[in-house]
Parts: sequence; structure tokens; C-alpha cells
Amino acid sequence: MKSLVMEKKGELSLRDFPDIARAEEHLGPRDVRIRLHTVGICGSDVHYYVDGRLGPFVVTDPMILGHEASGTVIETGAEVTTLAVGDRVCMEPGIPDPNSRATRMGMYNVDPAVRFWATPPVHGILRPTCVHPEAFTFKLPETVSFAEAAMVEPLAVGVHAATKARIRPGDIAVVLGAGPIGLVTALAALAGGCARVYVTDIAPKKLEIAESLSPAITAVNVAQDDIARRVLADTDGWGCDIVFEATGSPRAAAGMFAPLAPGGCVVMIGGQAEPVAYDAGAAMVREARVENIFRYAHVFPRCVAMIASGAIDVKPLITRTFDFDDSVRAFEIAASAPAGDVKMQIELPQ
Amino acid sequence: MKSLVMEKKGELSLRDFPDIARAEEHLGPRDVRIRLHTVGICGSDVHYYVDGRLGPFVVTDPMILGHEASGTVIETGAEVTTLAVGDRVCMEPGIPDPNSRATRMGMYNVDPAVRFWATPPVHGILRPTCVHPEAFTFKLPETVSFAEAAMVEPLAVGVHAATKARIRPGDIAVVLGAGPIGLVTALAALAGGCARVYVTDIAPKKLEIAESLSPAITAVNVAQDDIARRVLADTDGWGCDIVFEATGSPRAAAGMFAPLAPGGCVVMIGGQAEPVAYDAGAAMVREARVENIFRYAHVFPRCVAMIASGAIDVKPLITRTFDFDDSVRAFEIAASAPAGDVKMQIELPQ
Amino acid sequence: MKSLVMEKKGELSLRDFPDIARAEEHLGPRDVRIRLHTVGICGSDVHYYVDGRLGPFVVTDPMILGHEASGTVIETGAEVTTLAVGDRVCMEPGIPDPNSRATRMGMYNVDPAVRFWATPPVHGILRPTCVHPEAFTFKLPETVSFAEAAMVEPLAVGVHAATKARIRPGDIAVVLGAGPIGLVTALAALAGGCARVYVTDIAPKKLEIAESLSPAITAVNVAQDDIARRVLADTDGWGCDIVFEATGSPRAAAGMFAPLAPGGCVVMIGGQAEPVAYDAGAAMVREARVENIFRYAHVFPRCVAMIASGAIDVKPLITRTFDFDDSVRAFEIAASAPAGDVKMQIELPQ
Amino acid sequence: MKSLVMEKKGELSLRDFPDIARAEEHLGPRDVRIRLHTVGICGSDVHYYVDGRLGPFVVTDPMILGHEASGTVIETGAEVTTLAVGDRVCMEPGIPDPNSRATRMGMYNVDPAVRFWATPPVHGILRPTCVHPEAFTFKLPETVSFAEAAMVEPLAVGVHAATKARIRPGDIAVVLGAGPIGLVTALAALAGGCARVYVTDIAPKKLEIAESLSPAITAVNVAQDDIARRVLADTDGWGCDIVFEATGSPRAAAGMFAPLAPGGCVVMIGGQAEPVAYDAGAAMVREARVENIFRYAHVFPRCVAMIASGAIDVKPLITRTFDFDDSVRAFEIAASAPAGDVKMQIELPQ
Repeated sequence: MKSLVMEKKGELSLRDFPDIARAEEHLGPRDVRIRLHTVGICGSDVHYYVDGRLGPFVVTDPMILGHEASGTVIETGAEVTTLAVGDRVCMEPGIPDPNSRATRMGMYNVDPAVRFWATPPVHGILRPTCVHPEAFTFKLPETVSFAEAAMVEPLAVGVHAATKARIRPGDIAVVLGAGPIGLVTALAALAGGCARVYVTDIAPKKLEIAESLSPAITAVNVAQDDIARRVLADTDGWGCDIVFEATGSPRAAAGMFAPLAPGGCVVMIGGQAEPVAYDAGAAMVREARVENIFRYAHVFPRCVAMIASGAIDVKPLITRTFDFDDSVRAFEIAASAPAGDVKMQIELPQ
Repeated sequence: MKSLVMEKKGELSLRDFPDIARAEEHLGPRDVRIRLHTVGICGSDVHYYVDGRLGPFVVTDPMILGHEASGTVIETGAEVTTLAVGDRVCMEPGIPDPNSRATRMGMYNVDPAVRFWATPPVHGILRPTCVHPEAFTFKLPETVSFAEAAMVEPLAVGVHAATKARIRPGDIAVVLGAGPIGLVTALAALAGGCARVYVTDIAPKKLEIAESLSPAITAVNVAQDDIARRVLADTDGWGCDIVFEATGSPRAAAGMFAPLAPGGCVVMIGGQAEPVAYDAGAAMVREARVENIFRYAHVFPRCVAMIASGAIDVKPLITRTFDFDDSVRAFEIAASAPAGDVKMQIELPQ
Repeated sequence: MKSLVMEKKGELSLRDFPDIARAEEHLGPRDVRIRLHTVGICGSDVHYYVDGRLGPFVVTDPMILGHEASGTVIETGAEVTTLAVGDRVCMEPGIPDPNSRATRMGMYNVDPAVRFWATPPVHGILRPTCVHPEAFTFKLPETVSFAEAAMVEPLAVGVHAATKARIRPGDIAVVLGAGPIGLVTALAALAGGCARVYVTDIAPKKLEIAESLSPAITAVNVAQDDIARRVLADTDGWGCDIVFEATGSPRAAAGMFAPLAPGGCVVMIGGQAEPVAYDAGAAMVREARVENIFRYAHVFPRCVAMIASGAIDVKPLITRTFDFDDSVRAFEIAASAPAGDVKMQIELPQ
Repeated sequence: MKSLVMEKKGELSLRDFPDIARAEEHLGPRDVRIRLHTVGICGSDVHYYVDGRLGPFVVTDPMILGHEASGTVIETGAEVTTLAVGDRVCMEPGIPDPNSRATRMGMYNVDPAVRFWATPPVHGILRPTCVHPEAFTFKLPETVSFAEAAMVEPLAVGVHAATKARIRPGDIAVVLGAGPIGLVTALAALAGGCARVYVTDIAPKKLEIAESLSPAITAVNVAQDDIARRVLADTDGWGCDIVFEATGSPRAAAGMFAPLAPGGCVVMIGGQAEPVAYDAGAAMVREARVENIFRYAHVFPRCVAMIASGAIDVKPLITRTFDFDDSVRAFEIAASAPAGDVKMQIELPQ
């Protein structure tokens, strides 16, 4: 069970991790065992590696990283009906308590008891195999590659945001922030019905990538231009229907109502560590609706379907791929935040 | 045309105001002329009197105050079909541009061109008669008094807030603030489907009034008790479905997510002068929806119907009534914010 | 375990039923054991007794009847946290598969695998005790009696209908049919925000009961009056916001769009055995929304809260109470559909 | 003013029509005068020509046909601000009363007073020029051709249907009927967020065209295959999220719930002359929501934006173009319903 282990803050090693092997010896009746194929590196993985923590979550013991994953079913529990050995799959990394009140109401993502990969004390899946519930494991059509499938997890954030926005066909949206989450949100917003999406950032390279994704994306460098002025000019002074806040930056959030039309919606995606200076007056005169989202629920099969049908193409976002043996180096590169990279992935030996 | 005129900051007089008489000589084909009967004193009227301004609106010329009104139709325009001379009515004080984009979309309250009584440079209706569009004048059933009808305007804010909250029958709500708007919101929330409403304040007298309105209202003095702790204790740790922010106080707003259940809704009613410290993390883990409201739209006839059917009783909120000749004194008393008063009204001579 | 057993079509007996005692010897870790106190007689119970079937469900073996119930917890499973021995409770009669797709999405009522009391082959609860999951057992406040609590099940249908209607405060509704379900729907519609509810029927006695429930209810005898004409006359020709179809009669359903306003909603509650002649043209010119409902989901605790707060008073609907020893006679009376009765209940010995 | 006049049932002529020229001599302050460029032939135009009527609307006097139009502004009223002479535009054919209750609530399409082109007694626009309100005239970006712009009217029906369906990203939809409205609905559903759309018909040629529009469209010939069986097989027995009924056929509508998933939505687009046999039981067990739509509201600028951004490509639907001088022949061909044609258009001399 050679795994990518974060030993402590700033220290990674690729080594055997017997605990996890023992913990997953047993396969429940509704579980499947999966051989991992591709795992994406997420900003949260890098945060744990560099800072030893992420918000309230602190890594105190060695922990395996990774939660954006695809693989192949190699064993099925006795009651599994929808999956078979050999099925290519992607996996939802958070497992809620099926008996919690939030889960029963259909909002399992806000169940406080959810166990989420690579969030202490739960281990991630940069390792050869894992055991996972059938209900959170999704079969891939032949046309969806392992690399694309490992993009479903970050894409799910964007698709969940687009779902909560309740896009009406032909809406105009602004996405604040051109990082990986901003970009998947822009793709989800277009696939979800928007006619045009403005993407903002201050990094020219990121804006270049954003604009390359679709002719319906307009990149705006907010180091030079004012996004509200731009949108109002393009819409006869009316404004955009939706603003997706994907920077996590208090400064960007402070101006998030400025480009918004009357009756519009702001979706706050980026977790903000500090309270945001919320412009209540600007929100009021527009009767803005604000949706705050946390991860995602019920969207993995939808993401797979949208990749399969061509509604969303995530391939341009996968900018570099490493062998599992190079995964420590992959994290070192990721930690340097190279300007031209969106998503780096690691392939495990099969 | 003896009117209550705010001459300048801190100075009121009851005097003839010939300009308004001239301006309203003409009656349009879809207008009615109304003899005013009862006018309530709103906090915004008092603000203009005491401070000479309200947020961005500054009084530079003498202005007639008052916008919460009922009266009797005394003349009808040529194309008026739903009203007749002698009809007892209440009036919506804001008149939008019927051709604006916001109005056409059904959101006339966010039309920037709206003309609103007693908001400079538009005069209010503490005067004998006024001319008003039929479309914003609503006939009263016999069972609704002029005094109750003059409460429709503030009630409309509460009913609009309750509408935007999308209450499901049996919801539990918290109303932050037991001022006049907090109280009408509590009544609207109960009539709109809530099973229980907690009302908070730090003034014992206000909380006493709140609790007297319904056995389904629980008053909580937040100078002594923590509203979140109380609500969580009463709901097995789940929280309430809706929080109405009606204090306009940044301090109250900072904690507004604490009592809220997963998937719950916050409605921001109280206009906030300064940016609010918005606890994005608390909003995120609950996937809170935040609705920001501005005045009201389409609710006046609904408020009349709810008063008429007994669903809402506004009479206990009317704590003092003055003759028009005493209206300057009425404003002086209102400016002193007497603890036991909710709504003061002025009756005009008939 | 003396139980009320439907032996076959038209034959009831009160006798020992050892099978059920054996089946419920075991108490699961998340289950509670309950001593039944009060059980209401539902139209479906009577249908099984009189016809031997209800729609597709046929009674082939002796079956215990009853599914509207309240009682007292007498034993709790090892993992139960929210209930204790001695708690007075009411119970939701349908238990879904917690792992089904519908349940996970929050719609457990449309899970095809749901097991529902007194629906063959599942036994009902006209018997001394039963075992039930904690998650579907709801604690009663002191102020809610066992008789009221046994009304929660039928009330839940009305509250679910009112929830799906998405009532806005001050709406006007029409309830077609003044049977038990029509009446609980009228009460739920009023408590859920309606300012006025019209209730129709052709039985004068039922209409009399309907009108006695609230001054905001208007009874209309459709043997003599046209409901659409009446509603249009009362609303300046606009129509009502919501129509609840609670007759299950194809003839009533054929005219259900006639009283409806543009943009209004029809909620179909009454299961219809045959296809309904749906007036597509009338639905189209109003852009009507039609909600079709099936039982209820997530509303039991809301119903308990609304009874406790006084928002809904179900006591006037309980028109007769029988001892358990008289339960065969109670069913015979119920089968005769006496004009003045709404709900008959049976009390079990304690 | 040479116009295409339907003289009476079955008789068309291209001739001067002095009445319309006189009627439109005057240009209101908020109107524009437009030179027509391209006009599409709609099924309703053909119905009037062939049958002399459409549902309740009977042609008793000579009437100009045509309502799907684009053109160029040649004169602007005194208060027009958003359009200028020379602007290329498309026009919404229905003009509501701006003061009606429905219009004020944002639902102008259900205003009974709406005046709609080529619906007796209102003339259509197969003529050189027309006068139209600025508010219902929409400027075209350079990249949208006159031919595409004349497709906005039928596309608007599909986009309105997709809006009412409240598509969530990744939904699966079925469109019953591959006529022009079925095809624009399929395109709108995909652009509005669906991952896959099944289109049904019994005409192989129409299904061929449907499938050619997008790899995400699956055509199903319901003369041979059962659509419900197919959809259930493809979705693990769950069903599709949305069914768009676009056949107007009672037989298709009778089975419209069969492929639908629990909690799904049916949108009824096709006006049905006779009552539909509505399968209430099938609707109930799914808790189906049914939306009935009538034309469209607020979607023209959205349609233009979606054509401009490439989200929707209507060009493959335009299968034949005629000169205005050939317009009688064009109608004769249209009346024969040629299998390979979707939309025929007529170009006016410039």
C-alpha cells in the first residue's frame, strides 16, 4: 500500500502505509473496492502540505492526501447492484451519515457528520486502492477518460454553484476569479444556460486560459478595468443576472453587487476566512438574492453526463500529468503555483 | 391646502402650501382624487425632521411629510373602472415608470425612477387631498377601518419580507428587532405560515408588546440571552428556518447566521448604512440563502385581505392618535421615541 | 396482541394475531416500541374493509387495519437519542428505504420501496403495541393531546399540499371537496398564508362544518352555484391563486382551471382512478402550474408544531370516539358515511 | 404597401392594402418604424390560410399574414432612446396593455388584451413596413443575420418552455414531437443546461433532422419504439427529469408521464384543442410538476444573445427561402407540409 503521505507540515513521502490497508480489509455489503487510476491535485491538498492546516482543520498525524479521483472497480459487496468488477468509475469524496436530518432532507453536503477524503482525520486516496460506498461511486461511459473523470470533483463545485444560481436560459454571468474553481464555474455556467460569462482576475496568463475555453467567455483584467463599468456598458446599464464569487478574497467580495442587475443573484463559492464587508445598501436596492454554497450534492452523475455529451470540455484545464513515483515533485511544483497551470494530475500504476 | 411642512432640519409648520394645490389641479384619466383621512408617522418622516436627511436623500426645500395613508375617493379620472367616488381606500406611496424594464418584469419597487411620497423632491400626504393613480389605490372592505388601512404601508414591508422568505407551513422564524418593522414582520411571518416566531430586542417594553401580539411569539432579550443558543436548544440543535434582520444594526447582522438551520434563509429588511460584517463561513456551512428586500411590490391588496379576514390584526400596534392640528406636537413626541409606542397616527379633518 | 383484523372483504374481527407479535419481538438499535393510544379511521381503511382493495392494492390475507396513530414510547433501541420511555408520540406510517435514490434526494414519499401501514402486505396498528423507527416517530408537546396527535397523519396531507402550492401571504384559494382531506387542506391553506379559502361540496352538512372552522372560509354548494363565477365576481374577474383538487372526482377535476387566475397553481390531492379530462386550453392561457402530490414528506414535526402553537385547530374535525372493544361497530358506522361526521377515532386500552 | 393578404379561407393575394398604410401613418413617441427584411412562415399562418381559423380565432375580413420578422429601423419616435435609424432588429409580435394587472405582475403574455400580429383582427407583417413599440423591438448584433433573427420568434417558444422547466445543469429531457417547435425546444433545452435530449416523432425525415442538430440529441421513432422503455433503460430505471409535450396530440399527451422520473416536470407547449386524458395516477406517484405555457415573455433579448454567442444555432432549421414575389407559392408549398422542411422564410425587397 505505497501511498503519498503528508508526514507533517512541509514534509511529504511516498511510502507504505499499513494502517489504511488494515482499515480497508473489510468490504461492506454496499461497498466496492477500487483500484485508483488518476488523482488531481487540489488547492486544499497543497494548503495542508504547505501550511499543515486548512481553516479549522489541522493535520496532527501523518495523512494520505488526494480526493479528486477516478479508477476501476476490482471487487463488489454482496448487495451492490449498479456496479460490476471492471467498471471504470469516479468517486464522490464525502460520505454523509445516511440517517442524519440533513441527509434525509436531501442536503447531505451540510451534514456535519460527513467524512471527507484528505480532511483530517480522514485519509485521502493517493494510494493503490480504496473501499467506497456504491452510492457515491459513479460509472463512466466509454467516452470519458480517467483524466476527465478525475476532474469531476472540482467540476462538481462549479455545477453545484450553477444549479443554486437557478440560471435562466440566456442569462449573463460574471465569475470573479480565474483559478481552477472560477474556470469550472464559468464552464458550468455556460453549459447551464448562460449566453455570456465574464471572468475576472489580475493574472494575464489565467485570463488568457479563461478566454481560450469558449467564444462566449470574456476575460476582464480587474487590475486595469472595472468589471461593473464594463458589464453595465454592455447591458444598457442594466447589469448581469448572476455573479459567482470564486476568489475567496474579501476585497473582490466587497464589490460583488456592483455589476449585478435588479433581481439578480450572487453565488458565494470561495470560502472566506474572515467576515466579508457586505454592501447591504447595494444588495438592497437590487433586491439581490445571495446563495452560499458548500461543496456539492447530487451532481456527480450530472457532471459525468455533461462531459460525455460534450456540454462541458474539461480537457483544456488539465495542464500537466505526473507518474505516481513523481508525486512528491508534483506537489512541490504545485506549491509554487506556476502561472500557466490550471490542474495537475497524478497517474497511479495499474 | 393646509399641510404639514418640514421647512428645514428641525423645523415643522402647519401652513398653506399653494404649490401642491396647483400641481394637483389636473386629474389624469387613470387617476383618482382622494381626501386623506389617517396618516401614520414613519421613522423615515422623523429622520427627515430631525436630521434633515435619510441616507442619500437630503431635504433642501420645504417638503410635506407623510406616506402611510388612507382616505376617501372624491373624484375619478375618465378611464377609471375599479374605483368610485365615496370608496374608502389606502394608497401605495411609490409610483414607478410603467415603461421601465424593472416594472415590465414585475419588480417595480427596484425601478430607479420610482417617485415615492415624502422622499425629496416628492411631497408627502399630510395634507387635505392628493391625486394618485388608480393602479396604486386600493379599495377597503367595510370591516377595515381608516386607522388599520393607514397601517397597510408598514405592514407591506413585513408581508413582502415574508413573501421573499418563501415560508413553508410550520417554519420557525427569528425576527431580529422589535421596532415597528420587526413587529409587522413577526405578524406577517405567522400569518404567512410560521408555527413560531422568536422576536429579539434589548428594550423590555418592546419585547412585552411583541409577546402580547400572539401566543406563537416568543420574546428574547438579547441583552441577557443568546438567541442562537435559545433556538438551538428548542430545536434539538437544528436551528430555525428563517431569520428576518430588522434592526438595521451592524452588530445584530454580524450574528444573523448563528441561529439558522442548514438550508435556511436570512431576509435583510433593515437598510444598513455601513457595510455589514458578513460571516461567510457560517453562511457557507449552512448553504444559507440571503434575500435582500427593498420596500415591497404587489402586496397592498394582499395586506388589505389579510386584515379583513382576521389573519393579521394591526390594531394593537396603533398606540396613539393625534388630530391634524396637533401634528407638529405629534412629531415632537415621535422624535423622543417613547418606549411604549409602536405607531402614532394623525387624523385629518373630514 | 388483540388486534382489529380485516379477515377478508366485508369481515372484521377483534382477535389475537400472533404473527405480528412474533415479527416485532426484536427491537432494532434505531427503533422504539410504542403502546398505541388513539387511532383514526381513514377512508382507505374503510375501502379495504368494504371493497377488499384500494386501487392496485388487494387484500389477500388477513390484515390489521389503521395507520393514523398516537401512543407512548415503552422501549428504546440502543442508538436512540431523541426519544425516551414515557414520551408521548405520533408516528409517520410509511417507512422508505434509506438507501434509495428518491430518499437520498429528499423525496422519500415517492420511493417505490416504501412500506406503509395497512397497505397490503404491511399490517396496520389497531393493536396494542408496535415497533417503529425513531426517525419516523415524533415527540408531542404537553399541550397536544393523543386525539389531536392521531390527526397529524391526515393533516400532513393538507400541509404537504399547502407546501407544494408555495402559498404567498394573502393568497386566495379554492378547495374542491369538503371531505376530511378537503377540510384539513383548507385549514393548512389558511395557516400557510391564505387570506381566504373557498370550500366546495354538494353536501350541505359538510359545507356547514367547513364554514364553522374559520371566518376566513367561504362554503360554496356547487349543486347550486358555480365556483368559478363566484370567485371571479369576488376578485374583479382575476380569479384565485390556488385550487386544491380534493374530490378525486373526474367531474370536479374537469373544471378545476375555471376559477384560477393567470399564473395560478392547481394542486391535485385526490387520487383519481381514471384519467382526468384535462382542459389544456384553459391551463395554457393562464400558464397554470399543476402540482401532483403523493402522501407527504418531512411535514410531521411541522404539523405537531402548528397544532401546538394554535395555528391549526383539528379538534372540531374529531366528531366521534370509540373504545377499542367497539372498533368493529365503529367501522360499520364509518362504512355508512354518516353526513355529520368528519373523523372517527378509536382509543386503545392503556 | 404591397402586402400578402389572406382574402378568405384558401385564397391569398399579393396586393396593395391601403388600410394598413393609413393606420400606421402616425408614429407614437415610443414607437419605431421598421422596414421588414425577413419573415418566417409559421404553422398558424398556414392554418389561417387553409382552414380560415385557428381555434377560437376566425378570419372574417382580409388579413395580412406573418409574425416572425426581422428588419431595419427607418424612423424613431421622439422618446425612443435605445434604437436608432439603421439598426437591424427583430420584433416581438404581441403587444400587451402596459396597465393591465398581468403586465404589471411581469406576465404580459397572459394579458387577455394582448394584440398579436396575424391574429384576427390584428394584421401581420408580410408587408414593406410596420410601426412597433420600442419596448418590443430588439437590436441585433452584427453577427446575427436577418434570417436568424426571423427565427427568434419560434425559438422564443422553446426558450420560454426551457425557462419554465427550471432545468438544472445535467438534466435529461424528452421532447415529444419533432416539428419546428419541438426542434427549437430541443435546442433551447440543450442550451439551457440539459446534458441529453430525446426527441420523438413518427416521421423518419424529421427525426433525421433532429439528430443532425447535436450529438446530444437522440431521436426515437415512436412508431417502432416505446420512449418510456428507452429512457428507463438508459437511466437505471429512474426516468428523465423533464418532458416537453410539443405534439399537440392527445395521444402523445396521454403517455407523457411514463418516461418521467420522480419529482420531474412536464411542460405542455403544444396547444391542445380537446381535453387531454391526463393520467392522474402516474402524475401522482411521481409528484410530477406540470407547467402549461402560452407563447413567451421577456425572452427575445435572451434568444438574440444565445444565437450571438453560439449557444444556439438556428441556421440548420431554415430549409428554404423565397422572394416576397413568390410568397403565395411559398404558402402553397408550406400547406403541403413537405417532409424535409422545417422553416421556410420570405425575404422582402429592400
